[in-house]
Amino acid sequence: MDERIERQKITSVQNPRVKMVVALQQKSAERRRTGLFVVEGRRELAHCLEGGLEVKEVYVCPEIAGEEVCVAETCPVWEVSRGVYEKMAYRGGTEGVMAVVKARPLGLEDLTLGDRPLMVVVERVEKPGNLGAILRSADAAGVDAMVICDPLTDLYNPNLIRSSIGAVFTVPCVMCSSEECIRFLKAHDIQILTAQLQDSRPYYDTDMRRGTAMVMGTEATGLTEVWREAADAHIRIPMLGRLDSLNVSVSAAVLLFEAVRQRGLHNS
Amino acid sequence: MDERIERQKITSVQNPRVKMVVALQQKSAERRRTGLFVVEGRRELAHCLEGGLEVKEVYVCPEIAGEEVCVAETCPVWEVSRGVYEKMAYRGGTEGVMAVVKARPLGLEDLTLGDRPLMVVVERVEKPGNLGAILRSADAAGVDAMVICDPLTDLYNPNLIRSSIGAVFTVPCVMCSSEECIRFLKAHDIQILTAQLQDSRPYYDTDMRRGTAMVMGTEATGLTEVWREAADAHIRIPMLGRLDSLNVSVSAAVLLFEAVRQRGLHNS
Repeated sequence: MDERIERQKITSVQNPRVKMVVALQQKSAERRRTGLFVVEGRRELAHCLEGGLEVKEVYVCPEIAGEEVCVAETCPVWEVSRGVYEKMAYRGGTEGVMAVVKARPLGLEDLTLGDRPLMVVVERVEKPGNLGAILRSADAAGVDAMVICDPLTDLYNPNLIRSSIGAVFTVPCVMCSSEECIRFLKAHDIQILTAQLQDSRPYYDTDMRRGTAMVMGTEATGLTEVWREAADAHIRIPMLGRLDSLNVSVSAAVLLFEAVRQRGLHNS
Repeated sequence: MDERIERQKITSVQNPRVKMVVALQQKSAERRRTGLFVVEGRRELAHCLEGGLEVKEVYVCPEIAGEEVCVAETCPVWEVSRGVYEKMAYRGGTEGVMAVVKARPLGLEDLTLGDRPLMVVVERVEKPGNLGAILRSADAAGVDAMVICDPLTDLYNPNLIRSSIGAVFTVPCVMCSSEECIRFLKAHDIQILTAQLQDSRPYYDTDMRRGTAMVMGTEATGLTEVWREAADAHIRIPMLGRLDSLNVSVSAAVLLFEAVRQRGLHNS
């Protein structure tokens, strides 16, 4: 009986819950105000549950999702029509399942670091798609944490979640100022390697076996002076072609996997 | 006087040239039929000229482009209104300049390879955005060529050009069947390294200093049997987190830059 009560149906786009979900998808101010955000898609939701976040409610469109969707049993599940789902979805192809989830902001003091931590730090990277792509690579490289300094977007932007394929829930991710981050890294004896073209050496000529933070700025303007001065070494990825830059998420992956290589960590 | 004749103005979206550009942007069949395609954006157009492609006509919107745009002097330049430009543009933010360009299909026999070539090969990768991103990384890593086997898109898709930032014009790029590509690689004594999770070793345990082709399939289905059998070695990027795959363009960059590292090529 309980289940029947919880599986209520929504067929009108005028339903207040639909409006709430749309507002959470579209407005970072609404996400900040409520402390809630929306996760779309099976893989994303699976990683969200894996990451231990609190799912408040789930919306399933049986017409799109097809087979039964397995979700947390303790939260209400709503069945929605295709029209309602499409209204609530941020973009297409998210498999007929989404959830409203409680944000869990982390501070630097919440991080649990290993023996010789590997971290990725970005300063003022704006595009949510790039941040999500960095998180995906950071997950693959097994980083201890990602820090977003002086952020220009929130962590729960739908494009960020999507391009991370849920890595935003599996990689501990902190937002803070550059100054706070530098203080933290110095206090924990984590070397700061800044990615920059000027006054730098090829990244593979640098020892990354000790605690290391890879710090990257935007493709357009690079890092600010505060990071260049705090750096233990300036590193660059050699550009051997005609173009003058790599995508920031690609650069992050190349640098992080060099640390993986040097440390000889692998699943073999 | 000549210049005045060539700088004609277009203010109507009904103009046949506008319709032609829109058709070239939207339809690969139209690009195939005419052998023409459209390049949008300053950097993209600069790399196109650098790559020696034949620009047939240029469209400039002074209202968006602002300052004078420097283009090939030998081709006609049309001034278009903002409304016309926006109709012709595939997406926003392309700086008010675009051109119609003659396609230059390359075959394997057209490739000029160095002493110990570095190549990237993809099989059935569908998303133009991924192919463009791979080309961008391939340019940075200084590859000799990229081969797209059993292609599902054409090289001049607007999303591919855009995500490559013009690397599609600076990296020699061939489309052919997997069988043709394998025959070519064997004939040129280029080792075939296939990226795959099963029966593979970490990529950095493989010598990439000799002629090397990195071969990658789609994220979803991987490579077909023909490539697995043709391979000199199966390599993988260790996945140390919770997700089970990297973006294909990120994987390509990690593998290509390992070859760069091993070969000790850099601009220092």
